[in-house]
Amino acid sequence: MKEISAEDINNFEKVYRLNLINSITGFKSANLIGTKSLESGISNLAIFSSVIHLGSNPPLLGFMLRPTSGDNNTFENLKESGFFTVNHVPKTQLKSAHQTSAKYDPKISEFDKTGLTEIYKADFQAPYVEESRIQLACRYRNDYFIEENDCRLIVGEIEQVFLPDNALEEDGFVDLQKAGSVTINGVDGYSETGLIDRFSYAKPD
Amino acid sequence: MKEISAEDINNFEKVYRLNLINSITGFKSANLIGTKSLESGISNLAIFSSVIHLGSNPPLLGFMLRPTSGDNNTFENLKESGFFTVNHVPKTQLKSAHQTSAKYDPKISEFDKTGLTEIYKADFQAPYVEESRIQLACRYRNDYFIEENDCRLIVGEIEQVFLPDNALEEDGFVDLQKAGSVTINGVDGYSETGLIDRFSYAKPD
Repeated sequence: MKEISAEDINNFEKVYRLNLINSITGFKSANLIGTKSLESGISNLAIFSSVIHLGSNPPLLGFMLRPTSGDNNTFENLKESGFFTVNHVPKTQLKSAHQTSAKYDPKISEFDKTGLTEIYKADFQAPYVEESRIQLACRYRNDYFIEENDCRLIVGEIEQVFLPDNALEEDGFVDLQKAGSVTINGVDGYSETGLIDRFSYAKPD
Repeated sequence: MKEISAEDINNFEKVYRLNLINSITGFKSANLIGTKSLESGISNLAIFSSVIHLGSNPPLLGFMLRPTSGDNNTFENLKESGFFTVNHVPKTQLKSAHQTSAKYDPKISEFDKTGLTEIYKADFQAPYVEESRIQLACRYRNDYFIEENDCRLIVGEIEQVFLPDNALEEDGFVDLQKAGSVTINGVDGYSETGLIDRFSYAKPD
């Protein structure tokens, strides 16, 4: 077993530390967040590995914005409009999804550059990714500034869910493998999954 | 494609909503958090699917505590002692790991009830899980109360990392599949993974 100390971590070269610390907490979700500026009408799409479940009632999710994020459009747009979409990265579109992390000119929509298809549903303001098989319409609720490293936790409420019929089980469980969703390992590793088992509610004996 | 509205979500039966909303944000990390009460000396171990990467420099992670969590020992112990461990759920110990979510008497250590092995390293105060192949020593830094649903985001700093030599790549990337780590789908689904690809740093053209 290899042992890495706080001092080692501090002394690592930047990319090495980034790879290590981004991997070490375990697997992450893989989502594309879609927003649109009210003012300019320009849409924005960015990949996030930090979308998390926050609660079921009300249905809340969160994601982290880095201070150094090249994609500040996401935050600006969702604060301004109040809306965003969360779209699962599909196994068939890894390269295009990853490409949304490039630092494009804010006046350019990532939809135009990556080949992912921008669609709108009903009168929801933010764009969905057509290729994503799970799509969520979300409303901005709040954000929390994390003073330890100048990050920001965005809290959103899920207002609508689109998903493939065959991925939804009788008890509400969504089989993400059947939906073609992937998981992220570290900064840049994309993994497919295979469900081993589901366990029943644990009781003391 | 199936469409689920906010009203549908609100009207679902509790367990159905729990399964759906816990699945719908994507795959989650699978970790066991170990703590020990300074006062009573009783150790605590609980499974969490909410451990997330917060930043690399300083190396920070976070996890969410639910207001209704049966396991308040984790929060009490880490606030009191200032320390906790994060241990990846190994593929070989899913049942034991899941069993830590049962509501045991606070005077009982989950280590005694689940068969997972409690070990201590150097003079670090919190217990590690011997069966976990990736283990992190963490120091409590802060917590943020999320007023939208009375949850709490705990922020910890990684002080030491233990991992298998063969999972650590030359550039710092940790291959979680090689470490036998799993990912969580929803409340109770455990999945193994297969790395599809790693992509290089994305540039506009």
